Amino acid sequence: MRDIRIALDMMGGDYGPRATIPAAIRAVEKYPYLHLYLCGHSQSIHTFLNKHNALNHPRLTVVHTEQVVNQDERPDIALRRKNRSSMRKALDLVEQDQADACVSAGNTGALLAMARYVLKTLPLIKRPALISSLPTYENEKVYLLDLGANIHQCPETLFQFAVMGSVMANEVEGIENPRVALLNVGEEEIKGSDHLKQAAEMLSKCKHINYVGFAEGNDIFSGKADVIVCDGFVGNVALKTIEGVAKLIISKLRALSEKSLFTKIMIGILMPGIRKLFSKMNPDHYNGASLVGLRGIVVKSHGNASAKAFYSAIKEAVKEAQRQVPHKIKDRVEQVLKDEE
Amino acid sequence: MRDIRIALDMMGGDYGPRATIPAAIRAVEKYPYLHLYLCGHSQSIHTFLNKHNALNHPRLTVVHTEQVVNQDERPDIALRRKNRSSMRKALDLVEQDQADACVSAGNTGALLAMARYVLKTLPLIKRPALISSLPTYENEKVYLLDLGANIHQCPETLFQFAVMGSVMANEVEGIENPRVALLNVGEEEIKGSDHLKQAAEMLSKCKHINYVGFAEGNDIFSGKADVIVCDGFVGNVALKTIEGVAKLIISKLRALSEKSLFTKIMIGILMPGIRKLFSKMNPDHYNGASLVGLRGIVVKSHGNASAKAFYSAIKEAVKEAQRQVPHKIKDRVEQVLKDEE
Repeated sequence: MRDIRIALDMMGGDYGPRATIPAAIRAVEKYPYLHLYLCGHSQSIHTFLNKHNALNHPRLTVVHTEQVVNQDERPDIALRRKNRSSMRKALDLVEQDQADACVSAGNTGALLAMARYVLKTLPLIKRPALISSLPTYENEKVYLLDLGANIHQCPETLFQFAVMGSVMANEVEGIENPRVALLNVGEEEIKGSDHLKQAAEMLSKCKHINYVGFAEGNDIFSGKADVIVCDGFVGNVALKTIEGVAKLIISKLRALSEKSLFTKIMIGILMPGIRKLFSKMNPDHYNGASLVGLRGIVVKSHGNASAKAFYSAIKEAVKEAQRQVPHKIKDRVEQVLKDEE
Repeated sequence: MRDIRIALDMMGGDYGPRATIPAAIRAVEKYPYLHLYLCGHSQSIHTFLNKHNALNHPRLTVVHTEQVVNQDERPDIALRRKNRSSMRKALDLVEQDQADACVSAGNTGALLAMARYVLKTLPLIKRPALISSLPTYENEKVYLLDLGANIHQCPETLFQFAVMGSVMANEVEGIENPRVALLNVGEEEIKGSDHLKQAAEMLSKCKHINYVGFAEGNDIFSGKADVIVCDGFVGNVALKTIEGVAKLIISKLRALSEKSLFTKIMIGILMPGIRKLFSKMNPDHYNGASLVGLRGIVVKSHGNASAKAFYSAIKEAVKEAQRQVPHKIKDRVEQVLKDEE
């Protein structure tokens, strides 16, 4: 296995090094070929490395940065003023080909803006997309994109999202000839906006994509498709609605558990399983969401990410680096657009 | 209490009279001032009335119709060819002022198309919307609209949805000065499409609406607002995603229950409570969704509606008829637009 080098934004997320350091240590222990660049305040990083007896780990390199992008900082401000931040440094290392991928749990808007600025989109790609996988009823995975990288809508963008999603499902998840659907308000061909209908027509004509038609919101988890494509506005609302439902269920179960000692014990026993399920349903918490369509690999972990969630995001970055996802996307898009001419 | 007359489409939904007859009987038993028109195949209706010993109920009037709108029928076809259907008859009775409201569990698309054609939109109203309430963490209710009556997007439509949602929350749910939010991909003012920003500007200037800003998908259940407004595409995806999550959780709990006799018993005990919660989260199943912005009251019950769900939809129609919701919407919209001039 060739060496994989990943740059981590150690300061991002609610917990900073407290969560990112244990995740980094666990990752290098798991992958003997993994080298990590730990970008952030060196003093703070050293303190936590010391705490975990990993000060002199040969595959953990501390890269000192002074600035931190705040969770509520405006993306345009972060882009202009925080070019000496841990987030920016992690992206710069990918751009300079010193790292194969980067992972951050920082401010999503700032990360998207910086990543686009630093890494640039792949040739022929109109817009990048945020993609992640969710579980289905049958314990399969379904990729959903765009989860909010941009809210622009056009048929060509949706078509390219389908191509990128298909590559991800194929390369990262190993799904042969992934079934791709467009998210719509009905399954009938006459439903939806004109740009959706145009995207559907483009997809059904494309021999490189296994297009299976429209899917509705309840089909996300039904296993009808391996990749579900929508614009970033709709994807973001869907994802956050799922997060909201998860919180609602947990709050209701908690209320139910207060009813009697019996229900309290029962729900206490079930809760870890339920929480685990929900964390899977919120991909952001689970294995991170990936920004695809750029010249480098960027994995976004949730701002709330624990060490475990950040570790999962690193694993995702390792997988994508091994499969050289950006190259595969570039090749596939070129191939598809060439055939179209 | 003045008499309320409601026309029911007895043939709609998966179960037809098997579900709609018990619901109708329960409703007239509950409300002594309620008179129901039972539109559908008289023979089939009589059979079920007989079965429930309600053949000669003085407040149940059978209105014979020959045609039935199929669940998968195209709306435009239903509109053209099914003008002797139970669905159409129920709407006609409202239009002719013989009924104060109508309820159907039939084909949603067909109902929307027929309702618009038969009842027409209220003066000044650009487009009708499908609205329903969902539970919040704190056991309050939040109204969400549009759930898919139309997928057209424009600031004026969103603004009118906000007015109509505000009237519903105020009149039907009794919420004073309801807080209204626009569904967006972030809370910051700079987020979202231009038409959302324009709608936000219109709402923040309007003294008749208690506009509280943008809300995200996870805010639907958080109690941040009493009314959440979005276009029909986004609302439909959000609602169906909630339905998908509910099914996913139940399928996962079932899988978990297979693990041991212990978990089987525990989950068996919890399941009814969990199912009940989910039925509340899918308003369509629970109390129906209402089509607002028309000259009459139309409540849509789920195609899958049980007698209980159909009964809830009738109750919702009674409430709206008592509060004369269409009149209130008309007055409020006139008032708001007058002030704008």
